[in-house]
Amino acid sequence: MEFTIRQEVMLKAIADVGKAVSASSVHPIITGIKISAGQKGLTLISSDFDIFISRFINQTIEALEIVEIGEIIVPFKHFSELFKRLPNGNVWIKSDGLSIVLKAGEIEVKWKGMNAGDFPELPEMDPDYSVSLEEKVLARLFKQTKFAVANQIRNPVLAGVNLIFKDGFLYCAATNSHRLALKKIKINEQQIEGSYIIPGTSVHELLKLLGREDRMIIIHISQQYIRFEAGGLMVYTRLISGRFPDVHQLVPDHPETEIALNAKLLLRGIERSYFLSSDSHNHNVKLEVQGPSSLMLSAAGPQLGEIIEKQPLLGSSGICRLKITMDGKYLLDALKEIEEENVKFCFYGNLKPIVIRPLENDTYLHVISQVRDY
Amino acid sequence: MEFTIRQEVMLKAIADVGKAVSASSVHPIITGIKISAGQKGLTLISSDFDIFISRFINQTIEALEIVEIGEIIVPFKHFSELFKRLPNGNVWIKSDGLSIVLKAGEIEVKWKGMNAGDFPELPEMDPDYSVSLEEKVLARLFKQTKFAVANQIRNPVLAGVNLIFKDGFLYCAATNSHRLALKKIKINEQQIEGSYIIPGTSVHELLKLLGREDRMIIIHISQQYIRFEAGGLMVYTRLISGRFPDVHQLVPDHPETEIALNAKLLLRGIERSYFLSSDSHNHNVKLEVQGPSSLMLSAAGPQLGEIIEKQPLLGSSGICRLKITMDGKYLLDALKEIEEENVKFCFYGNLKPIVIRPLENDTYLHVISQVRDY
Repeated sequence: MEFTIRQEVMLKAIADVGKAVSASSVHPIITGIKISAGQKGLTLISSDFDIFISRFINQTIEALEIVEIGEIIVPFKHFSELFKRLPNGNVWIKSDGLSIVLKAGEIEVKWKGMNAGDFPELPEMDPDYSVSLEEKVLARLFKQTKFAVANQIRNPVLAGVNLIFKDGFLYCAATNSHRLALKKIKINEQQIEGSYIIPGTSVHELLKLLGREDRMIIIHISQQYIRFEAGGLMVYTRLISGRFPDVHQLVPDHPETEIALNAKLLLRGIERSYFLSSDSHNHNVKLEVQGPSSLMLSAAGPQLGEIIEKQPLLGSSGICRLKITMDGKYLLDALKEIEEENVKFCFYGNLKPIVIRPLENDTYLHVISQVRDY
Repeated sequence: MEFTIRQEVMLKAIADVGKAVSASSVHPIITGIKISAGQKGLTLISSDFDIFISRFINQTIEALEIVEIGEIIVPFKHFSELFKRLPNGNVWIKSDGLSIVLKAGEIEVKWKGMNAGDFPELPEMDPDYSVSLEEKVLARLFKQTKFAVANQIRNPVLAGVNLIFKDGFLYCAATNSHRLALKKIKINEQQIEGSYIIPGTSVHELLKLLGREDRMIIIHISQQYIRFEAGGLMVYTRLISGRFPDVHQLVPDHPETEIALNAKLLLRGIERSYFLSSDSHNHNVKLEVQGPSSLMLSAAGPQLGEIIEKQPLLGSSGICRLKITMDGKYLLDALKEIEEENVKFCFYGNLKPIVIRPLENDTYLHVISQVRDY
């Protein structure tokens, strides 16, 4: 294998595929990345067996010249660190067996690779469906739901984010059975139907790769894998098999009380109460609707003392006196993801879960259980 | 104690004194800060017994109104975190015994303090000398020397930075006996003479406090303490007793060979060699002057392979063929602190320490031992 490439181009590609590199020493091979020089360009591949990332550098588009085709595995971390330290400009790379030589101006590095034969193969995709979405929209969809994924995996499906294609909408949901985040977006493809579960860890890595670029992401879905494609970048992630709870059944209806508040002011208030409760064994925050225009927040910790504060309501309807206890962490997580100015809390009665949603937007909501306060 | 203060002013003052707060749980009292409301204003004090920081907020200058004088200790970390979460604007604070009440708008917090009587007293200073320096100049003086302080304290004086006042100059030096960093600046006070050793850890904390502001720092020195003063801020640090090595005797004279290089290019080269050597038991980098116009850098690690690179010399004099081995870490540390464009290396013969200094500036230098390479 022999090629010349611009240092900047290679460094960017290494960083892209680096997101799937495993730190595990159980399988040393996947601490590396596979570099393949082909007739049309260079492909970098990484995998931790759950996610695969492939980045293609096209010889006719980018600053690359393939002299001899071939492939090799290089240790990711060291290769990446070395490339960061090379000057901008052309880098010539040649491998012969497992030895690699690299030249950049007056700099020459001799290096050892690993055998390419042992590297996991990219999944074969025989897509059932494909759909394209704006990168920004997809990124926000994942960001606004994935925090609600369960940490403890008594039920493996809850460790994933659920994508549901239905009636021209894509629904995205995550729940740990105490709270649910649910968002929907309109898609152009009407014929897609189906429910898929992506591991939360994969969504986490995907979010690092999904920039805020103005481009479309093409999603391909097969039985076992989902693939996200943009430019020369392809990310494959294994799907979780099993049946996700029917999230639409988890959203209660006919609230007894509704109140509207400024989202940012409320977030700051919850942050204070959460902080004061942070040295107790729970993170309980009390909410008390004290009439049609006032909400009282309070919390207490054995060391830190206690806090009480009042926040004005922008509006209210229904029974305007109630007192509930919530997990402050869940409130914080939900409020942090609401981008709108104002927020609505819906209450459904004694110890029933509450719903939090943007006041003027019905495409996004949170369902959060109350805490029984003894 | 009772006063009203702007949240922003209090938060800044808490952050300033926070630098000396101990994380130690051996003495719970010094995990707190002492707040004293006096006739003229508010004083915040922190101490870890080695450093004391005091910040005075003047009632006539800053947004503060003292209603009742008094003092209390509050746990630093929690108090700081609480203040970060309060809105901008007035905060009213009242203490009664060990209980504190704090109000900010519709927010009310009840809190517990600690007994002020147990807090360490500020050192009494009976200054031998005082001198004033620009904050930026002092910060650079410390930054360019303190990295050379010894980590292992077989010789306690080497754990400090040496300040020497002599003939209208202030010399600042640090050494671990394998390398030395030495810088001098001109001062206006001619009559000061003396040598003082400030603990490296104190210099480290001081550097966090010394901003890049255009103001003067007044330094007071007594037998046991040195105090740095600017605005309402005073930092006291205990001095190390003992005799620092005569650093001027450590700087060799009459070089056999001198070479000049671009500082940034050389730094990048040393970074590469250092990286390649980073998996070996040492961080050895080889330097070979190959004639009047070329320096070769090389290094090797058992896993990472080997690197060789050539760098052009901007000039040279003396015997222009030599080959030495250096600790790459020491070279890196020294080169990172040189702000000038070009750098001079001076060699004094077989296994003798070398001197590195800016090409056009004789107020700053590094002395670094060679490594015996078997």
